[in-house]
Amino acid sequence: MNFKEVVSQRRAVNFFDPGKGVPDSLINEMIELAAKAPSSFNLQPWSLIIVKDPEDKQRLRKLAWDQPKVSEAPVVFIVLGDRDAWKQGHFFVEKNFKEMVNSGIMNENQHDWFLNACKTIYGGNDEKKQAFACKNAGFFAMALMFAGKSLGLDTHPMDGFDHDGVRNAFNIADNFWIPLLLAVGHFDAQKTLQPPKWRKTVDEIVIRTY
Amino acid sequence: MNFKEVVSQRRAVNFFDPGKGVPDSLINEMIELAAKAPSSFNLQPWSLIIVKDPEDKQRLRKLAWDQPKVSEAPVVFIVLGDRDAWKQGHFFVEKNFKEMVNSGIMNENQHDWFLNACKTIYGGNDEKKQAFACKNAGFFAMALMFAGKSLGLDTHPMDGFDHDGVRNAFNIADNFWIPLLLAVGHFDAQKTLQPPKWRKTVDEIVIRTY
Repeated sequence: MNFKEVVSQRRAVNFFDPGKGVPDSLINEMIELAAKAPSSFNLQPWSLIIVKDPEDKQRLRKLAWDQPKVSEAPVVFIVLGDRDAWKQGHFFVEKNFKEMVNSGIMNENQHDWFLNACKTIYGGNDEKKQAFACKNAGFFAMALMFAGKSLGLDTHPMDGFDHDGVRNAFNIADNFWIPLLLAVGHFDAQKTLQPPKWRKTVDEIVIRTY
Repeated sequence: MNFKEVVSQRRAVNFFDPGKGVPDSLINEMIELAAKAPSSFNLQPWSLIIVKDPEDKQRLRKLAWDQPKVSEAPVVFIVLGDRDAWKQGHFFVEKNFKEMVNSGIMNENQHDWFLNACKTIYGGNDEKKQAFACKNAGFFAMALMFAGKSLGLDTHPMDGFDHDGVRNAFNIADNFWIPLLLAVGHFDAQKTLQPPKWRKTVDEIVIRTY
């Protein structure tokens, strides 16, 4: 599917066909494609909890304004942004450094420089940590939605949920923020898809401040 | 260009051909495509400052670790996330509500409900405001990078800059966070493109917490 079609046909669908499952192989392909998204210093501070069990989806639905799509979609991702994935000793921070050394982008002596740069840019204060986690998880989630559409899947990104409630119910550690839930499945062809919503024009997006 | 090619061929290129400009029409097309990205309640809390003037790019480069790509790329976007774009009275919040009424998704009586929901989810505290701005700007920026690639453009997302310095130099109001700078142009074919960096596998991304 060409990119313009993917962008135009990706819609936040409200109704999923509960009878149409999604094989794990397709979910894996969707995640693998999206994992090619760029990230700050390639730190990839994103994780997913995959919710498929009907009882777990019901628990999640109760914490998400009782929206039917949470239980009707065959798969719901709890998307996570890791606010600590810039710290010395973090598994993926150290792995990332080793991979950069292996590929010749950095050398062993730059370990301190690398960790200090990460700490300054991403860990300087709570505002920066939150921005780091959410911006990068935003890249990944957008890539997931496009990847899904390109593979014939429909998605719906959701903000309407009790953040602390989901954290507690699904045992999510404090270092993670939950930027969104993402329902994944197939649009219920019995329903009517709403026309696309309005979008800002280029002139509304581009601002002149200086 | 099909989506798998776009995802695989989008690379954060370090070297731009300073002799190869990008016409405004192509920049506009890139922004229009990316503007189809979804957002929280369709609030689209993103803006762009487009930096093209050589002196302005030099000013920005000095604030961005003196990275040559800032001045070599013909166009650099200062990407903004609006931490206030959920508030009553905000131009685009009110426009969004009117558009929803016009299209029949909401009715006039739901104005208070809509504003309260936005305030609760996005404006409840500083952590939520920052997440709202950065997550959505992340969606938009990811879509910009893919849209650019699909139109034959190369990009480079950058975090290495003095956030307050850029805010001051480019007169950016406090309601905006600057999640990234995005250099846009054409890869310099005289240079060697590094091989793609490592990525987390599906098993590294998916976590089990319960």
